[in-house]
Amino acid sequence: GIAAPALAQASPNIRWRIASSFPKSLDTIYGGAEVLSKRIAQITGGKFKISVHAAGELMPAFGVVDALQQGSIECAHTASYYFVGKNKAFGFETTIPFGMNQRQQNVWMYYGGGLSLVRDFLRDFNIVSFPGGNTGVQMGGWFKKEIRSVADLKGLKMRIPGIGGEVMARLGAVPQNIPGGDIYPALEKGTIDAAEWVGPHDDEKLGFYKIAPHYYYPGWWESNSMYSFYVNTKAWDALPKDYQAAFEAAAAEANIDMMAEYDFKNPQALRRLVGNGVKLHAYSTELMKAAQDAAFDLYAEESEKNPAFKKLFESWNKFRADVTLWHRFAEHTLATFQYANPPKQR
Amino acid sequence: GIAAPALAQASPNIRWRIASSFPKSLDTIYGGAEVLSKRIAQITGGKFKISVHAAGELMPAFGVVDALQQGSIECAHTASYYFVGKNKAFGFETTIPFGMNQRQQNVWMYYGGGLSLVRDFLRDFNIVSFPGGNTGVQMGGWFKKEIRSVADLKGLKMRIPGIGGEVMARLGAVPQNIPGGDIYPALEKGTIDAAEWVGPHDDEKLGFYKIAPHYYYPGWWESNSMYSFYVNTKAWDALPKDYQAAFEAAAAEANIDMMAEYDFKNPQALRRLVGNGVKLHAYSTELMKAAQDAAFDLYAEESEKNPAFKKLFESWNKFRADVTLWHRFAEHTLATFQYANPPKQR
Repeated sequence: GIAAPALAQASPNIRWRIASSFPKSLDTIYGGAEVLSKRIAQITGGKFKISVHAAGELMPAFGVVDALQQGSIECAHTASYYFVGKNKAFGFETTIPFGMNQRQQNVWMYYGGGLSLVRDFLRDFNIVSFPGGNTGVQMGGWFKKEIRSVADLKGLKMRIPGIGGEVMARLGAVPQNIPGGDIYPALEKGTIDAAEWVGPHDDEKLGFYKIAPHYYYPGWWESNSMYSFYVNTKAWDALPKDYQAAFEAAAAEANIDMMAEYDFKNPQALRRLVGNGVKLHAYSTELMKAAQDAAFDLYAEESEKNPAFKKLFESWNKFRADVTLWHRFAEHTLATFQYANPPKQR
Repeated sequence: GIAAPALAQASPNIRWRIASSFPKSLDTIYGGAEVLSKRIAQITGGKFKISVHAAGELMPAFGVVDALQQGSIECAHTASYYFVGKNKAFGFETTIPFGMNQRQQNVWMYYGGGLSLVRDFLRDFNIVSFPGGNTGVQMGGWFKKEIRSVADLKGLKMRIPGIGGEVMARLGAVPQNIPGGDIYPALEKGTIDAAEWVGPHDDEKLGFYKIAPHYYYPGWWESNSMYSFYVNTKAWDALPKDYQAAFEAAAAEANIDMMAEYDFKNPQALRRLVGNGVKLHAYSTELMKAAQDAAFDLYAEESEKNPAFKKLFESWNKFRADVTLWHRFAEHTLATFQYANPPKQR
């Protein structure tokens, strides 16, 4: 059909704020909200403008869900798993231990019913969620001493929050939740023996390698780490359809863009860290098996008492099995060959 | 600042056409252009409308680069490697054998300088390119008989186009280029002994499993397969800035969306194929080593005589080594553990 004349479609000026749960120092994660905001401003010729506010500017990092529920903010950029204290079902959107990788999490969310279930769950909080970034598999943390087996975890004080921390506790460690800026002094004083943070790019900046040189991989508690744009339901419903479309496209772009930016920065940081004497170690298969068993025990126990968790877990668990069935053929076989046989350079 | 009133910013009605290089039967790849077109129409309230035309509707599938160069079409959705006959440098944007996976290709393009080099190369063709979809690692094709070693490829007539075909020829096979619809009859008549196409979802529809039951993985000649939106330079430059921004965001969304859609459909198709008696085989490490050697020999030879290829190859080759250095730690170690140790279900 013929489009209506432009005059009839004058678009309103709308101003939103995004409360980020991240400090500016986590430049790549924090930057995801800036990618969204900038793109929406470009698309709408500056009519729909969203200002981005670092953690603490408008409210504390973990205050964003309450603020959205009360309608005192339009939008947040956060990690759902910060809110597992409210309900463990919050874990699925970011990640739970031994979960899917970034590509698999994307397909579960976009096509496999995950996003729809997440949104059902978030309705009580007056939140509509949109995937908005990822780190990929994170690293497994910094240790003062080598960890050769599960026994070495006994009594070990480790900074590791959330469900990953609960799994560590089941293996004998003593998990601690410490904000990013306080980790280095705690490691230095010996208040903790180990700490996990993100990956090479972010970890390097906090300097852990100077006092805890054993750097483990993989971060089996974060097989991906998906960040989310949380929008207050009323604010979303009041948005014109064309602005909603702009927001959805910009969120998808921010989602893919953060992953690419991390994949660009992490190899460079890893190279520097190794140059600074960092010792890379893989967690033993024995330890990872024990951790996976403990994680799935926890999921079974939680499913029995928490219907919201059970509903998400059943979808997640079935989807994970299906998609890894496919990925372990073509994707994984080629990667395994390529990593073991780098091409000779002519 | 204060946005200008809407009246001053009336947006023009613009109509473009996309010539797709794909038939509608390749629903997921073809659908990438529809995702872009639909999103742009939503964002602009129908003012910027792009109609999508299947291969053959406006021009033959492989006529799109000439049409863009001459300015007779505004946009195409295609695979750059269809045009390696013009210059092998066209290969890099889609993929060349033993290349990067989907995530790695994205970061090379978006952050690693790949897209900028590709655009430099395409300037002579009056084309600006935007990544617009991916299949991930493809499958390694259908064979009437098992292929246990390089020796089994000798004289084997296989449908495999492009640089992958050239590598197969160096291993002793006789590559053929046959359009999708003609592969099944050629296999049935015995004109060819084997054929590669895409992956489980697309391959199942063409029915190869009925007459060539040995299904190999991985498709080492397509470690990812990135599709592109090619836009005529003049058409791009004439677009208002807000429409350019809408196009860029929608292209990024189409890029991530196609990968997710394939990851959703492929596991289901693979399950059905195995249920129909398909025999899955991994290519031997010996064969993949020989193929990788042949591929990198070809890249070295081409670099000596083709400066455009050399420039792209050097960037690609260095970036591939860097990013796989990182991915083989956290990503690959966790995937290897998880695929070998699926969690016991409670």
